[in-house]
Amino acid sequence: MSGQSNKDIEEGLAFTPKFDADGLITAVATDARSGDVLMVAHMNAEALAKTIASGEAWYYSRSRKALWRKGESSGHVQRVLELRVDCDQDALWLKVEQQGLGACHTGRRSCFYRAIPLGQAGSVKLEFRDAEQAFDPSKVYEKK
Amino acid sequence: MSGQSNKDIEEGLAFTPKFDADGLITAVATDARSGDVLMVAHMNAEALAKTIASGEAWYYSRSRKALWRKGESSGHVQRVLELRVDCDQDALWLKVEQQGLGACHTGRRSCFYRAIPLGQAGSVKLEFRDAEQAFDPSKVYEKK
Repeated sequence: MSGQSNKDIEEGLAFTPKFDADGLITAVATDARSGDVLMVAHMNAEALAKTIASGEAWYYSRSRKALWRKGESSGHVQRVLELRVDCDQDALWLKVEQQGLGACHTGRRSCFYRAIPLGQAGSVKLEFRDAEQAFDPSKVYEKK
Repeated sequence: MSGQSNKDIEEGLAFTPKFDADGLITAVATDARSGDVLMVAHMNAEALAKTIASGEAWYYSRSRKALWRKGESSGHVQRVLELRVDCDQDALWLKVEQQGLGACHTGRRSCFYRAIPLGQAGSVKLEFRDAEQAFDPSKVYEKK
């Protein structure tokens, strides 16, 4: 990898994902139908390998410091229809079919349920958008 | 910010973006029409403030270590139609109207022009997808 030129990385067909100092790469999951961003998460090399092999999204949880199969506890698995890498190979895009009712642990379909008003200077107040809960997280994540 | 509970951060309307140790937050720009991810970049507090105030995307370039108005040299400005923040306020989603022919410095519309084949174990070879050049970067970025 160290011998790779920028041209190799950007125009070549060798997959050489650039993990950061913590061994992670940013992964963006969008809903394959609507194009909405469902979540932004991270993968380590193992999560990436499992995603590629299984066609289901695996991530690495920075808070739990653990490999994490998306939908493991909620059943809300993400089937990956397409996986892409960006020009400098430090970000991944997953087009997914979201199983179950949502991707967000708060019960929403997407983690992005608040908008930041534009055209203002100074402090801003968020506005809810598409913030209806699709499921009740207290039920989905209840201890078995 | 330090006094904020997870509930405040996730369910409140106070905008308290969580910048990382380098003072950056991840920003995903999607094409408002197609839903395609155009690029994944980063903002520092100043880039975020300028984006909110102007309605045009500003980022922070980690390689150039500089504030960066998207389209500054190429003319390929991004008009932000909607800006959203995720549940834990450590990622931003910009729905943009991409001006000019593309977002990627390689000349493509999106930075994600290569796919990783799924269902394989071991080494993988990338495949070009939507990789036609929309513009000639040597012309767009030529020195004036």
